[in-house]
Amino acid sequence: MDLDPKQPRIDDAFGRILARCWEAGTAPWSAVEVIERDDGLIAAHDASRYFREPEQWTALDRWAWEQATGRILDVGCGGGRHAVPWLARGHEVVGVDASPEAVRITRERGVEALVGSVPCLPEGLGEFDTIVLFGNNLGLLAGPDQAPQVLAALAAVARPGTRLIGTGTDPGDGGTAHADYHAWNLSRGRARGQLRLRVRDGATATSWFDYWLAAPNELAAAVAESAWTPEALERDPAGPSYVMCLRK
Amino acid sequence: MDLDPKQPRIDDAFGRILARCWEAGTAPWSAVEVIERDDGLIAAHDASRYFREPEQWTALDRWAWEQATGRILDVGCGGGRHAVPWLARGHEVVGVDASPEAVRITRERGVEALVGSVPCLPEGLGEFDTIVLFGNNLGLLAGPDQAPQVLAALAAVARPGTRLIGTGTDPGDGGTAHADYHAWNLSRGRARGQLRLRVRDGATATSWFDYWLAAPNELAAAVAESAWTPEALERDPAGPSYVMCLRK
Repeated sequence: MDLDPKQPRIDDAFGRILARCWEAGTAPWSAVEVIERDDGLIAAHDASRYFREPEQWTALDRWAWEQATGRILDVGCGGGRHAVPWLARGHEVVGVDASPEAVRITRERGVEALVGSVPCLPEGLGEFDTIVLFGNNLGLLAGPDQAPQVLAALAAVARPGTRLIGTGTDPGDGGTAHADYHAWNLSRGRARGQLRLRVRDGATATSWFDYWLAAPNELAAAVAESAWTPEALERDPAGPSYVMCLRK
Repeated sequence: MDLDPKQPRIDDAFGRILARCWEAGTAPWSAVEVIERDDGLIAAHDASRYFREPEQWTALDRWAWEQATGRILDVGCGGGRHAVPWLARGHEVVGVDASPEAVRITRERGVEALVGSVPCLPEGLGEFDTIVLFGNNLGLLAGPDQAPQVLAALAAVARPGTRLIGTGTDPGDGGTAHADYHAWNLSRGRARGQLRLRVRDGATATSWFDYWLAAPNELAAAVAESAWTPEALERDPAGPSYVMCLRK
């Protein structure tokens, strides 16, 4: 009897979750986001976090959001959590997300959005005054090897003086929950906080992708070789979150 | 670079989830139960369902619960959802669960409970007037090949006249969501609704186990060869759930 487990079908699992939550009026726990890490760790989150309104954000996230000026590129825009209120405030904003369903929802909410990811952004985006990697999306820098290409791709749609604002998570020493994962990563030539993840939903999963939880000083090397100059670093006094602002 | 995903560590994932929910006062979504099927399907449930009070149960579940008489064996007792109210009503009840944490919680709630599973029940249980497989636990019959041993193990702790009451789910034709799984099961010599599952929590998972969603007539063959005689079948008029009552 064949008892080898099968793998889920590769599809837009993240977008399916977002869509279920959106169709349920973004009610808490109307959709559950299941994230699997490549060491077998699994986590389940309330997907309504992707639709929280500005007044529900942390003070640090609100601060970061307030920094945006002019024409904004929202990289990994999800369901438009940050972009929709920018639009309401009169900003021109373009969202990009690897998830077709995320893009569909963001558009439905009135924001221009395109399917795409870093470092391969869609063609014809034009130039921006602010580029954001919000919702912890400094993780999309992916790792020390990939970050230079991502930073270059973002510089290619930036004007001189454009700001790149990202939110991230300092992995610290991993604590008791993640120290083994950090050690495994280091042993296989990866950065300690370089997560390898996939999102799962029903019979589907995204492909595995790298998502880099880097300490600010770990990002420094990649930034130093890039078109970007560090300008500000704001840390959450109560946790591992931070905002990094770079200037082209 | 080694990018082969690892498997989770085998541990009491189900019990960890129950314990987290219990320690949170059984608040909705205080813990999420992630169940993986061997075709890659993943599902996330509110674990507080394992602590719902009788007034929150379906009419069919309440009916089944009311049928119990005398000394009761609760097979797969979980956190004591059914056993605690039986105890409150003056029944003698013993719970058995494969999860050490489930047993710990059930005991903490005042009900005698032991770690064990079918067909290998703990020694020295004595005999019972009612044996229940509640919370869909007819699934613990596991499959057409395993069911006879399970039914025999339960008969061994039954008196003449003892009732075995179980709740189950008719898998039907699987619908669009499960037809492919049924077909895969049949192609590998399994019953169509013979789920192969594991529970995942954090870095841990249970071992894979068989959980049989059988139509009542599929159970009939296994029951016919056993010490048990069918006595009653009650179906949920609005869904696939049913209660089967057998008599020794």
